[in-house]
Formats: sequence, C-alpha cells, structure tokens
Amino acid sequence: MSQTPYVRADRALNAIRPVRITRRYTRYAEGSVLIEVGHTHVLCTASVEERVPPHQRGTGEGWVTAEYGMLPRATHTRGSREAARGKQSGRTQEIQRLIGRSLRAVVDLKALGERTLTVDCDVIQADGGTRCASITGAWVAVHDAVQHLIANGTLKASPITAQLAAISVGIVGGQPHLDLNYEEDSGCETDMNVVMTSNGGLVEVQGTAEGQPFSRAEANALLDLAEAGIRQLMQAQSAAVAG
Amino acid sequence: MSQTPYVRADRALNAIRPVRITRRYTRYAEGSVLIEVGHTHVLCTASVEERVPPHQRGTGEGWVTAEYGMLPRATHTRGSREAARGKQSGRTQEIQRLIGRSLRAVVDLKALGERTLTVDCDVIQADGGTRCASITGAWVAVHDAVQHLIANGTLKASPITAQLAAISVGIVGGQPHLDLNYEEDSGCETDMNVVMTSNGGLVEVQGTAEGQPFSRAEANALLDLAEAGIRQLMQAQSAAVAG
Amino acid sequence: MSQTPYVRADRALNAIRPVRITRRYTRYAEGSVLIEVGHTHVLCTASVEERVPPHQRGTGEGWVTAEYGMLPRATHTRGSREAARGKQSGRTQEIQRLIGRSLRAVVDLKALGERTLTVDCDVIQADGGTRCASITGAWVAVHDAVQHLIANGTLKASPITAQLAAISVGIVGGQPHLDLNYEEDSGCETDMNVVMTSNGGLVEVQGTAEGQPFSRAEANALLDLAEAGIRQLMQAQSAAVAG
Amino acid sequence: MSQTPYVRADRALNAIRPVRITRRYTRYAEGSVLIEVGHTHVLCTASVEERVPPHQRGTGEGWVTAEYGMLPRATHTRGSREAARGKQSGRTQEIQRLIGRSLRAVVDLKALGERTLTVDCDVIQADGGTRCASITGAWVAVHDAVQHLIANGTLKASPITAQLAAISVGIVGGQPHLDLNYEEDSGCETDMNVVMTSNGGLVEVQGTAEGQPFSRAEANALLDLAEAGIRQLMQAQSAAVAG
Amino acid sequence: MSQTPYVRADRALNAIRPVRITRRYTRYAEGSVLIEVGHTHVLCTASVEERVPPHQRGTGEGWVTAEYGMLPRATHTRGSREAARGKQSGRTQEIQRLIGRSLRAVVDLKALGERTLTVDCDVIQADGGTRCASITGAWVAVHDAVQHLIANGTLKASPITAQLAAISVGIVGGQPHLDLNYEEDSGCETDMNVVMTSNGGLVEVQGTAEGQPFSRAEANALLDLAEAGIRQLMQAQSAAVAG
Amino acid sequence: MSQTPYVRADRALNAIRPVRITRRYTRYAEGSVLIEVGHTHVLCTASVEERVPPHQRGTGEGWVTAEYGMLPRATHTRGSREAARGKQSGRTQEIQRLIGRSLRAVVDLKALGERTLTVDCDVIQADGGTRCASITGAWVAVHDAVQHLIANGTLKASPITAQLAAISVGIVGGQPHLDLNYEEDSGCETDMNVVMTSNGGLVEVQGTAEGQPFSRAEANALLDLAEAGIRQLMQAQSAAVAG
Repeated sequence: MSQTPYVRADRALNAIRPVRITRRYTRYAEGSVLIEVGHTHVLCTASVEERVPPHQRGTGEGWVTAEYGMLPRATHTRGSREAARGKQSGRTQEIQRLIGRSLRAVVDLKALGERTLTVDCDVIQADGGTRCASITGAWVAVHDAVQHLIANGTLKASPITAQLAAISVGIVGGQPHLDLNYEEDSGCETDMNVVMTSNGGLVEVQGTAEGQPFSRAEANALLDLAEAGIRQLMQAQSAAVAG
Repeated sequence: MSQTPYVRADRALNAIRPVRITRRYTRYAEGSVLIEVGHTHVLCTASVEERVPPHQRGTGEGWVTAEYGMLPRATHTRGSREAARGKQSGRTQEIQRLIGRSLRAVVDLKALGERTLTVDCDVIQADGGTRCASITGAWVAVHDAVQHLIANGTLKASPITAQLAAISVGIVGGQPHLDLNYEEDSGCETDMNVVMTSNGGLVEVQGTAEGQPFSRAEANALLDLAEAGIRQLMQAQSAAVAG
Repeated sequence: MSQTPYVRADRALNAIRPVRITRRYTRYAEGSVLIEVGHTHVLCTASVEERVPPHQRGTGEGWVTAEYGMLPRATHTRGSREAARGKQSGRTQEIQRLIGRSLRAVVDLKALGERTLTVDCDVIQADGGTRCASITGAWVAVHDAVQHLIANGTLKASPITAQLAAISVGIVGGQPHLDLNYEEDSGCETDMNVVMTSNGGLVEVQGTAEGQPFSRAEANALLDLAEAGIRQLMQAQSAAVAG
Repeated sequence: MSQTPYVRADRALNAIRPVRITRRYTRYAEGSVLIEVGHTHVLCTASVEERVPPHQRGTGEGWVTAEYGMLPRATHTRGSREAARGKQSGRTQEIQRLIGRSLRAVVDLKALGERTLTVDCDVIQADGGTRCASITGAWVAVHDAVQHLIANGTLKASPITAQLAAISVGIVGGQPHLDLNYEEDSGCETDMNVVMTSNGGLVEVQGTAEGQPFSRAEANALLDLAEAGIRQLMQAQSAAVAG
Repeated sequence: MSQTPYVRADRALNAIRPVRITRRYTRYAEGSVLIEVGHTHVLCTASVEERVPPHQRGTGEGWVTAEYGMLPRATHTRGSREAARGKQSGRTQEIQRLIGRSLRAVVDLKALGERTLTVDCDVIQADGGTRCASITGAWVAVHDAVQHLIANGTLKASPITAQLAAISVGIVGGQPHLDLNYEEDSGCETDMNVVMTSNGGLVEVQGTAEGQPFSRAEANALLDLAEAGIRQLMQAQSAAVAG
Repeated sequence: MSQTPYVRADRALNAIRPVRITRRYTRYAEGSVLIEVGHTHVLCTASVEERVPPHQRGTGEGWVTAEYGMLPRATHTRGSREAARGKQSGRTQEIQRLIGRSLRAVVDLKALGERTLTVDCDVIQADGGTRCASITGAWVAVHDAVQHLIANGTLKASPITAQLAAISVGIVGGQPHLDLNYEEDSGCETDMNVVMTSNGGLVEVQGTAEGQPFSRAEANALLDLAEAGIRQLMQAQSAAVAG
C-alpha cells in the first residue's frame, strides 16, 4: 500500500474484476477449468475415484475434497515449493479445508454414491482472491465431472443441489471494496471472504480485522457488496456451463 | 446428536457455561492461566523472549504469536499425539493462526518493542469451544506477562489496547444457541466463532454452514448472541485480573 | 549449580518431596491422575482401546504402552513444541519407552486380553524427576482404567501383579541425595533412576555418571536410598487408590 | 502397449510432435514460458535472486538450478500431490537435477555474477517427454530472464554460451522412434533422453533398456534421430525468441 | 583436480583398478558380497522376502529392488547421516533406482515367482565409481541368493538371464580414461556410467558433460573403453562364483 | 529361546566371546576400527571437525558425540532402512545418546579444545551386544583420532583420561551370564549393560527386567560378572593400540 491514500483506479469500488472461465482446459481430468479473475489465474481439475476415505466406507455416501497449491512463481517474488520443503503451510491447509467444506455444502453425498470427487486448485498466477477464485472455478469443474458421470451412465441425476461461488470484500482506506486485488488485500483494514449458494444462503463468512476491528455496520456493508458480486460470478458460471 | 430433537437442558439458549479463570497456574511462565468454560479446560501460558522472528527484525516492533495443542486424551476417545505423528494437523494450524492474529489486534507491537510474546494454549479437557476459550484465556496470560515486564522495568506502559474474548454460537435444531458444547457443535447446522474487543469491534467472524446454508437474518441473530456472551466473558476476565 | 557448594535447604538428603496424587483429574479417560512431586506436575491418563498393535494380534495377549510429552513452558525457559518441530526428541522417546516397559513388568498381558492400555504422561510443570513421577502416576492411572474394565464387566479380575513406582537418586557434592529436583539433577555427579515393584524387585536401574564415574559402594548407597523413597511413594499410591 | 503391434499413426517415425512456445505466459517471473510438445504442456518460469547457495558464496560465480513438479491431474489418473505426501519422489529429484545440470552447461556462471537463476518447470499436462520439454522450455525462460537483466542494466552481456534443447527417442516394436508420447514411452524396449547444445555437443545421454538390452548400433541410430529432432526444437526456440 | 595437468600414475588409461570380490561376507543374508574396486569398497547383500510390492501382487511375477547408502565417513570428509537428516538425498535415490532397474534387466521376474529380492548396497569406503561397483557386486549377491533358493528347493532353475556389470569412463584432460577414481571423477570434463550384460547388450548409458559438451566420437571412444572394462569385471565375477 | 531350557554350549557362563579389534579398517577417518565380538561386527570411525555445536561455542571446550546405525541386513531378517523410513527409531537414538555420553566421561573436553570428535558406529553384523561393542570399539577409534591430532601437532597431549569399555550381562534361565548373544538377549529375564573405565569407575549401569523383576543380589552378581568381562575387553583394547 502506498503512503498516499490508495485510490482504486481500474474500476468502481463495487465492481468485480473481469472473469473468464475456460472449460476443458486440460485433457485428462473429468472436469478441468481455468478461471481468471483479473490477474488471478487458477486451474481447477475435478477427478473421480471409485472409492471413499475410511470415514465414509460402507455408508453409501460419497465424498468431495480439495487440495490447493500455488506454483512457486505465481507471485511477485518466488516462494519456496511446498513439495521441496516437505510440508504444506498452515495457510495452504486452511484454504484447502475451506474449499472442500464449501463444495460439500452443495453436493448431496448420498446421491453421489460411494465415490470421491477430488478437486485440485493450482494457482498459476496470483493477484489476490485465490481462495475465492478456486471455489468459483471448482464448482464448474465439479459440474463437469458430474456431467461426465451422467454421460457414461454412472449417475442418473446430478447430486449438485445449488450453484456456489465466493468473493473477497474489504475495507480499504475506510471504504468497502469488492473483489480485492493483491495490493488492496495487503493494505486493507478488514477483509472478508464470503461463500454463497445460488439459493442466497451463506456457506462461509470469514471476516478478519487486519488492523482496526470492524463494526457490525461495516460487516453488513461488506456482506451486501459480496452478495452482489457473487451474483455476477454465478452468471459467469452459468454462461460457461451453457457454452 | 440424538435422533430425537436436541433440547439444551442445563441452561438457557442465550446463557454461557460457567467460566473460571485461574491465574499463576504454573510457576515459570510470565503469564499462566487455566481457563475453564464448562468442561472445556485450557492452559494458556505467555512466554517472553527478547528477540523477534526474521520479518520483524530491525523494525523496532515486537511480535505476538500462539501455538495450540490438545492432549491426546482431552477428548472422549484418544486422538493421536501430533508430536508422534510428526506433524500438526490442518485444524491445529488454523486454530493457532487464529489465536495469534486475534491477539495481535489488541497489542501495539511498536509499544511492545522488539520482543516476542508466545502464547501456548494446551487443551487439558475438551467439550467444544476450545479455540474460543484459548483466546479468552490467552488474553489474560498476555496481560500477566505484560504486568511482569512492567514490574521488572522492561516496559513503562502496557502495549495492550483493549480487552479481547471469543465465543462460539450456532444454529442447533433451527434455534440460535450461545456457547456450544461438543454435542451441540457436532450436531449444529451452522456454527460461528466470534472474536471481539472491549471497544465493541469485531476482530474475527468465522461462520460455517455445516449442513444447511444460513441466512443474513440468522447471521445477525448469532452475532447478537455472541456480543452478549463476550461481554460476560470480559467481566470474568476483569474480575480475574483485579483478583 | 551455584559456585558455592550446594546445600539442600528444604529437606533432609534422604527425604522425598511432598507428593500429591489426584485421581479423576479429567473426565473422559478411563484413568486420569495428576501427580505432583514437589514442583513437578504430570498428568497421566490411561486409555483403553479394544485392539492391539500388529506384533500382539492373535496372541490372546494385550499390550501396555506409553507416550510422554512436556508442555513447552513447563520449564524455566520455553522449549520448542515437538509437534511443531515435527519430531519427538531422543530424550522423549527414551522416556516413553522406559515408562511403557516398566508398566508391562507389572501387568499380566494374557490376563489383560487383546486390548491396549495407552498411558499419556504430559508434564504440566517440570522441576526434575519427570520420568519417575510419570511412572508413579501412570501406575495409578492404569489401576483406575483396570477398575473401570472390571466395573463394566470387561474383566473379571485385575491383571495388575504388583504396585510400581520410581524415583531418582544422585550424588550431589559428594553426598547421596534422594529425589533430585531440577537444580540438583543438573549439578549432580551421578544420577540414577530406579523403578521397583511392591514385591521389592528391581524393574529398571539406570545409573549415569554425569561427571565423575561412580563406585560400587556409591551405587549401593543410591539403591538403598531409592528403595526407601519408593516405599513412601507406594504408600501415597495406596492412600490414593483407597481414597 | 496394445497386444497387436503398435503402429504410430499420427506422424512419421522420425517426426517430432507439433511444438508451440509461448513467452510471457505469466506476469511476474523474469522469464515465463509455456511449452507445448504435442499434448505435453509445461510451464517454465525463471526467477532471479540476488544471492547464491553456500557453495558459491564469495566465488564471484552465480548458480543456475531447477525444480520440477507435476500437477496431480496432469496425467490420465490422478497422482498424489508431493506437497501433501511431504516429499518429492526419487523421479522428481532425478529430473530436476538433470534440468539444472543441463542448463549450467550453457551458462557461464562467472559471467552471470553472484546471483541465482531458479527455473521452475511445472507440468500442466503430461503425454510423455516432460523432462525434455522442460529443458527445451527452460532454456527460453532463462534467455528471457537474462534479457531482463540486460535491459535493467544488471548485466552487460549475456552469460548464455549456446542454445540447449532435449528430446526423447526409443526403440518401439523394434523400430527407432523420435519424440515418444506416453503410450510409446510405456511400451518401448529402450528409451533415451538426449540433451544437446547448438554447437552440436552432447550434454546428457541417458539410455535405458526397459526390456531388452540395446546394441551399439541401436544407440547410434537413436542418437542420429535425436540430433535431427533437437535441431528442429532449436528452430522453434529461435523463432520464439525472435518473436 | 590439481592445477598442473592431471596424469594418471598408477595404471594405464585403459586399465581398471584391482578388483576383489568376497562372497559370504556376512552371515545372515542369502547373498552377501564385499566388492573392492581399488579403494572403493561396497557391501552388497541380497535378501529374499516371500511377498511382492502392491504393483506386482497377483501377477505371478516377482520383484527385484535395491537400496543404497554410504556410511558417513566412507569419504574424505564426514558427510551427514541420511537417517539423522530424515531423508535420502536426490543422489541416493537416483543411484538406488539405477541399481534396481539394471538388475531387473537380467532377472526373469516370472521365473522368480512372487517373491522379492532386495539388494542393499552400502558403501564402506568411497573412491569414485560407487554406483558401478554396487551393480557389479549386487549381481553376485543376487546370484548367491538365487543359489540359496535353488538349494532349499524353492526354485527349480535360476531366473537370471545373463551376467551384469557396470563401469565408469570419462574424459580427463582431453583423454578417455577407464574406471575413474574420485579425483578423476571430480575433475573430468565428461563422465559416463555404462551397464552391460554378458550378451553384450547395453542396459544403461548415462553420459554427462560436467564442463564441456562431448562429441559423438568421444561418446564412442568411451563406450569402447567401457565394454573392455566390463568384460574384465565379468571375469572377476565368474571367478568369484566359481570359487 | 527354545522351549527346552537354554544351555550355553560354546563357552562358560562367565566367559566373553572372542574379541578382535582391527585398526585402520578404512582409509579416510582419523580413527577407524572394526570390532568383532563373536558374530557381532561394528565399524567405528572417529572424525575430527574443527568446530563445535552451538552449546559449546566460545566455551573453549570441545565435544564428543556419536551416531549409531545398523545395516538393514545385519540381522537374521532384513529390517527397514532408517534413511528410507525418514527417521531414526527410538532405540537408535537411545543407543547413540548412550555411546556419546559414555565417551565424554573419559575425554577432558577442555583439553580437547574447541573441536568435535564424531564417532559413527555402524553395525555390519548383529548377534547381540551391539551397543556395548560400539562403545568398546569407539574408544579405540577415539584413541586413534587423538593420536592423529597429536602427530600433526594440533594437540600436545591426549585429553583421554581413562580406558572405557562396555559389556552386557543377564539372567538367563535363572543363571547370570556374561556377554549375551542375540538368542540369550531375546530370552533372558533381566539384562544389564555396564560401561566402566579402567579406573574401575562405573559410567553407566542400565539394568532392565524383561520378564521377572530382579533382586539386589542378582544385580550385584551381574555387576561382578561385568567387571571381570570389561577387564578382558580392556586387555584387548590395550593389545590393539600397542600393535
């Protein structure tokens, strides 16, 4: 954040960045989606495996889980490779738990049957909001994997119960901003990640005061912004899966 | 959660569990607090070290960080020991990041000077709400460590800018409940952890739909409950530090 | 150790520190004991699991094992958390192997049947002699877990064949001392940990010359002291389980 | 490999797959190249850091190193994520050592000065030949990073001494084949990876009999094929850097 | 490498070092061979286990695999112990993969039946060429383990299809040298490890330009040297197994 | 242990196994000793490094430490390689701590000066008593490393204050036995490892009841046996270093 007060120059405070969703980005995954939200680019692949983790065995229910990673030079300066360091950071684990939990909120595990959908979200380029872009893209990848299972006769109907998308919002320079980029995210007073379904239900709300605590009024303003942004992301998802 | 609808028997839906805060629980730590919230018991110790992690060196600012652990048999059935497994779970890392971030919201790092306060939160017995009890107890431990630094002349004034406490709330059987115990936490539709300062500011809000997504109205009802509960926890903290 | 010759001030050279054994210290473990030996406080919980490790499967015999840990700020200065470092130290492994081996000397594994008793010894506060206090407390925790199995009809009779306790002894300033505290332990010439049964049998004798080698006469003097001390610890155990 | 003898259908035995090299594929790396060789797609980024590993400190020489990774679903079935498993496989380490060693053969470390070029080769999609595509793409990424250092005045002249590219060749069904895809690579009798410079010098030759040992005549036929293929790859590199 | 041009003093450029193969070096392994090639000494033991890794289960085929290690003070200065560091280096993994792959080229896995031969190659003293000595010695250890299985009636006939040996060659000071020692290996321009069978077939060729790239003519000269050297190693093997 | 009572056939109950000590077993270590005690063979190398671990820096004192390992097929059946498993077992750590501690009892660290002697004890073949053979052999290796430092002028006089050796004793079938082999060690009721100096001082006594607790009288009988055995080992050491 610069010393002079930050002024967002490229769009209105309540505008999201340009979104592009490319399906079938790679050949082998049952669902493979590149989502670009501004300069944040995430490859989301959904893989089907005909088995479930131990805690679901014999329950008749399936499982949906996610893994998250960032290429070492997705960012301004090179970060160390987690595989080389020999462990995933706390941040990585927190994010992949969030993605998996969010997806499970819109998949009927009973209807999925005893199989696992694993979504890999790998950040190719990062400019803020990577966990939200991951969730929004992952939903499309899961959609495509489910279509694949229907097409090959494994499933009769889709176990997906609603659309799902996520966006970050924050207070920057005292003003609520929608869809923070990296510079805004690093300099904001408060940021909040919001995950919602197309039925208007909240799935996750994670608000954090980075500097100054935030008020209930600010929380409400941020949630209003997020709702509007998520509705636009869902239109992009709908357009993509119709394409 | 039993099949018959759950009815909280031991207290009103908007009541917190009995809270007991014992200072100077162990001899050596600069701050050492046992906090008991119902059957959840957490030992919080604050340790002072006269050095800071690399990212703070030479800035003139200090650091506050936290580590979290659960004794293997704090719970109904024995969990594996993280030290023996050779790594901390994603859940553990998520919680200790939350505790550290929350504490930093009420400590002026510049006023602390180039030293580190490390708070260890070790769960002796767990009945839900361990991360919230950790934060509430940790604040008292930090308070005591700061008093120690003032008493020995290291600090002139306290770098603590406000009181801090946390509580969990959730929708159980369609009803908002304050301060969930383990049974309620496992069976709830939505749970939310709220961290606030004594100035009424929100520091963290983490709401998660475990089953059903939640509405804005439900989110507001939960935040109202949480605010009332946190105010009671802060009275317990004040009584303890006055003691 | 101070430069001036050390003189034990708080008790006679052949006296043990005050011992307090609190049963049912936590709610969930089948046996849960806080043992305090002077300023050394260890929580020992015994957990029952209805399975055995691979080497005992199908033998009709059970297993007794132990894990040991120390809270980071149990000591004068904060030690690093083994779960965070990602491995248990050699010292930790040595101690937990000793505790498990000692307990197996007084449990008839055939009479226990194919189940495992896992004893967790977690040091809350450390002032020397933590491994010995762990063994002494662990025996009571195992006793209580066995009573639990008898009470619920799993076992007809106790598989425990004798009482078990342990104490440290050492040569400090040329004089044999019973039950060393941390200061004495760090400064002694020789220290010895002795584990015995109520039948007077030795289970473990581990004598180590820290500085000067020790003579057979010294070894015998230390064993005499240890025997007397262990008899007192067993009285404390008996009183506790009678309580 | 199918039971009926394999016949390559899409191109001549001595033809390489279509190659596409896209520079500036991501925004932040000093060199960022997506190389596509048939269905094998690798993202190669070169990062500049103004320090060297310990073994080069104070020598006045720089260092060039590489890391390699494969996205979990780059392949037909999902592989486990190395960061989650907590270690890089032997295959991964072997490949990244090969890439780094090869690049160092065409960079004058003295002329580079005490700085490090780290090339990350991340496989987005894999259809055989990923280590060779990584080397061919990495050279372009290093070229671009060096141009960046010249443009910003850090270097006066390029420390790159020659062009570098790599290709796999193998005996499939008794016949030498150039540029094996995954199916050919899995079913071949012998495969060989060849790394060469634009001066015609061999940098690495790694020939492996998967089934049947190979003769000197076969080795020579494979090297002839490889040389021709590498010349075509170098034309693609030249066209790309001229673009 | 000294500053003055290196001149091999102890033997002709096309001579191998003295080779000594001692069978039954240790008592318990089914095959146990100490191979000494000049000052390089490697203990190769072959162990039989009546089970196979998952990928071979139920195929009716066996498996041959290798592990490699170097004692910390096998070398001029002490290296760190891989067990203490908690992981095998990339070099170690590369070498043990090479040894296993090479041995499998001369063992008929179907004829071996569903059992595993594990060869441990532990370097007692290292003076260059440890991977080649390991392969040459490992073949004798496998031979002895197979003889053991024939002697006890487990196998009717040997599944070994040919002899196998390996040698390093390199360009030192512009001249091809056979069987490099440590000093030559560190200072050479190119080195090549060659693995061959007694049928004259190549199993592995790994040529690496350490400094200067190498020409096809140099590669051919090195392969000629290697073939001659390997023939001598095979005579030593034959003499040993006849002994 | 067989069902029929065990009778030691190869020697008297108070006899040690044949001992052979070979100095300069490998070329590079400052001290390199192969010790054979019956079928137990351990290679002990002592390495000198001109630096000390952090806790000794600036104290003017040196350090002596040890590492222990066992080749995978040193034993009757192959054990897993610790480097491959990624960690040293508790047993390994316990043993290497014992060896280091014992050696430090007979080296004047002040007289050694700020340098480290690292002794690697690697078990080539194991038939019981590997830790004791390691200590006995390690002392000779340290002796040789010290002679090397005196010869090259680094030290004026030897910092070694006494000879050091170790032996195991045990109660087998009710009878005290000296120097247990593997079969005796696995079947004994009590075993004890004893480390002594040539001045007759005890450095370590580690007695463990494997089955039945042991009496003071038995402990004394075992120590008597051990003393006699250690005296014979010291004669072997003296003969070796005189050789």
